[in-house]
This record gives sequence, structure tokens and C-alpha cells, in this order.
Amino acid sequence: MKTLALDADDTLWENIDFFLKAQSGLCELLKDYVPASEVESKLFAKESQNVPLYGYGTKSFVLSMVELAIDLTDGRLPSSVVLKIHDLGRDILRHPVHLLPGVEKTVPILAKSYRLIVATKGELLEQEQKLERSGLKPYVKFMHVMSNKRVDDYRRLIDLLRIAPEDFIMVGNSLKSDVLPVIELGGTGVYIPHHYTWEHEAVDPEISDKYHYIQLEHFGELREKLAISN
Amino acid sequence: MKTLALDADDTLWENIDFFLKAQSGLCELLKDYVPASEVESKLFAKESQNVPLYGYGTKSFVLSMVELAIDLTDGRLPSSVVLKIHDLGRDILRHPVHLLPGVEKTVPILAKSYRLIVATKGELLEQEQKLERSGLKPYVKFMHVMSNKRVDDYRRLIDLLRIAPEDFIMVGNSLKSDVLPVIELGGTGVYIPHHYTWEHEAVDPEISDKYHYIQLEHFGELREKLAISN
Repeated sequence: MKTLALDADDTLWENIDFFLKAQSGLCELLKDYVPASEVESKLFAKESQNVPLYGYGTKSFVLSMVELAIDLTDGRLPSSVVLKIHDLGRDILRHPVHLLPGVEKTVPILAKSYRLIVATKGELLEQEQKLERSGLKPYVKFMHVMSNKRVDDYRRLIDLLRIAPEDFIMVGNSLKSDVLPVIELGGTGVYIPHHYTWEHEAVDPEISDKYHYIQLEHFGELREKLAISN
Repeated sequence: MKTLALDADDTLWENIDFFLKAQSGLCELLKDYVPASEVESKLFAKESQNVPLYGYGTKSFVLSMVELAIDLTDGRLPSSVVLKIHDLGRDILRHPVHLLPGVEKTVPILAKSYRLIVATKGELLEQEQKLERSGLKPYVKFMHVMSNKRVDDYRRLIDLLRIAPEDFIMVGNSLKSDVLPVIELGGTGVYIPHHYTWEHEAVDPEISDKYHYIQLEHFGELREKLAISN
């Protein structure tokens, strides 16, 4: 039985939209101090600067939003606004899970023919809670949260699972994190683009064009593509 | 080969001391507003309230410190102090890893006779970075970061490792999280108390006295206790 590993955020369920909504909330909170365009461009820079220490996920995002808000307002920010930024984070952490098209129907079918795991970046508790809320947990053997998704990280995962790379298929919305490193290792990579690609995940087409990956329009196509007779 | 799972914080390396130092830093930052005793008692309450949503680890602790500081100062807190609280968190995240007595010598010996893993609560990236800085990484097969350490969480770990509970030994400084649930499952629990027990980890002796666990004074005793001839 092959292992089918699924990315979670923006592959199984909506994610980036909740972060963008929080970002709009931050722009609104700061509108008397700085224009929204400045908040948006500088938030990306602040996050990129913080990721090596803080990692991915909502708490990291909240810490970056707060640091940026204080930087941009030269210490004039009332501390009540800081609490409101924390609330933006709580909204992300508690949001209802919206499954992407085809996921709800297709995952149970895939679980019959594959050892299904979830392999995702982000924060452990946050991802576990989303899996719980998603209703998909009964179909998933286990969730593997990774601090990064480079070739070495996938090699450790495959070693842990005690399988050969040829028996590993990874599905996700990021060429950089889900698809290319798995192909590099000898596994199969399936790319399902999401309507929004996070800047951190951008990859030069000149590079990605050299890889043989499967590209699908939506998650439901996985069933046919992986030729499951059911 | 049996699996020897080691807790990390306050079992392999000092941890709580860095949090207590940050807590003192917070008391100092707030000394013009509230007495230290109030900060300390209310911080524990704030953390306990936040753990279900924020989880364990430094970022969660920073968010709780900030929320408490703003609550306790009725909105009079300058936002510059919020940045200083973030700095207290950065100090925790970057602290040098201080191995506990006996760890440096004993871990390489244990690694010859056991499949050594680290099973720890906390945040993924933070624990990975500490393992990296500790110098112990070459001896550890893998690090398993858990959002909780209850019987079910250990069952999932043992399933993942494809081993019998009898072949699983867990070593740690918390009876509640490291020792009792593993014994409950049929494994072996080894308790090495740390000089400070975090309130979240307190357990009633009437309960713990019913379990047969091994208790050691320090990590170095593991070698003899597990009867390794080397």
C-alpha cells in the first residue's frame, strides 16, 4: 500500500484567506497612522525576518503584526490596539474549517487504497485542531507537522515511515514545498494550485519546468488521476 | 532493540529557569504598575486560560505575558513595553542549551543499546532548534513533538513506531506527562525529578503512589539502571 501524503493548508482546506482577512483587520486598526499599502508590504518583510526564529503559524503571525504595528506608529499605539491584534489571531485559530472543492468526497475514497497521512508546515496544536474540526481525522493515519519542507525533511519522514521514496506520493498547493523536493527524492509530486500563492512559496518557472509533476485543477481529480477503481 | 524515549525540557536540558527569568523580567517591566507577586500569580492563571488555544512554548508564553501586562495596567502600558516583552521571549528562544548533569556523557552510551528518540511537548521549531544547539542530535533517531502527553498520545506514538508497549521506555521529569501515562499503557516509566515542578505538571501523590515507576536522582544514573554493559 502506497503512502499518500496530503498537504493541509490551501490543499485540504482554506487557510491563506483567513490570514489575508487578519491582515485587512490590521490595516483597519492602523488606518489613522499608516496607509494600508505600507502595512501590507512591510508585514511581509517583518514576517520573513521573523520566520527563522518564530516559525510558521498564527502565533508567529500575531507577534509579527504586533511588532510591525508598534514600529509603524513610533510608540503612539495604544496598548488596547495590541489586544485587538491578538483578537485577529484568535479569529484565525478558531475559524471554522472550510474544505476545498472535492475534498470531502474524495478523501474517504483515497483512504481505502492508500495509507493516508497529512504532512504540513505550521504549528502542531493549530494543525491538530484544524484536522479535528475538518472531520477528516478518521481517514488519516497520522499528521506529521514539519518545521520545513525541504528534501531532507521529506527524507526523514520517509525514513520514519520505513518506505521507499517510490511508494510516496505528495499532494499540495506549493511547488516549492510539496512537489519539487519529493520528486527530487524519487517520489511522486501532485500539484493542485490554489487561487493565491503565498509569496514565501513562489518558485521560478524556469526551475519548476524541469520537473515532471502531475497538475490538477481541484482535489476531486485525484481519484481519477491515481486510477482508483472504487 | 527497545525504544528509549527521552523528554527534553528539564530532563535533557534546563528550561523552566529561562521562563522564570522571563517572568522576573516581566515583573521588573511592570513594577511601577503592579507588585511582582500579583504578576506572578496572575500570569499562571492567564497561561492556563490560554493553553487550550495557544498551546505550550515560548510564543504562547509571550502572548500571555503581553495580554496580562495590558490587563493589569488598564491600558496605560506604553507600547514600547510590549516590544520589551517580546524581547524576553526572544531571549528564551535563543538561549544557549544547558545540558543537565550526566546527560552529555550518558546519551551517547544509551544510543548504542537503544533506539533513542526525544518525545517532548512544546513547539516544533523551538524544540528542533534546541536539539540542534544541544549537540545531542547525532544520537537521536527522531524528535517527536506532542501537543499533549496523555495515554492516547503515547498510543499514537507507539503505533507510529510499530512497537509493543513493553518495548517502550519513557524518561522524564514529569510524573503526570512522562511517567504515569506510559505505565498505564504497559510501558516503563522512569522519573527524574527536576528542582522545580511546573504547576501545570503537579500530580497528587495519592495517585502517583499507585504506579510502579523507577525514580532516579540524575540522568547519569540511567546507564546503570538500564543495565547497560559498556
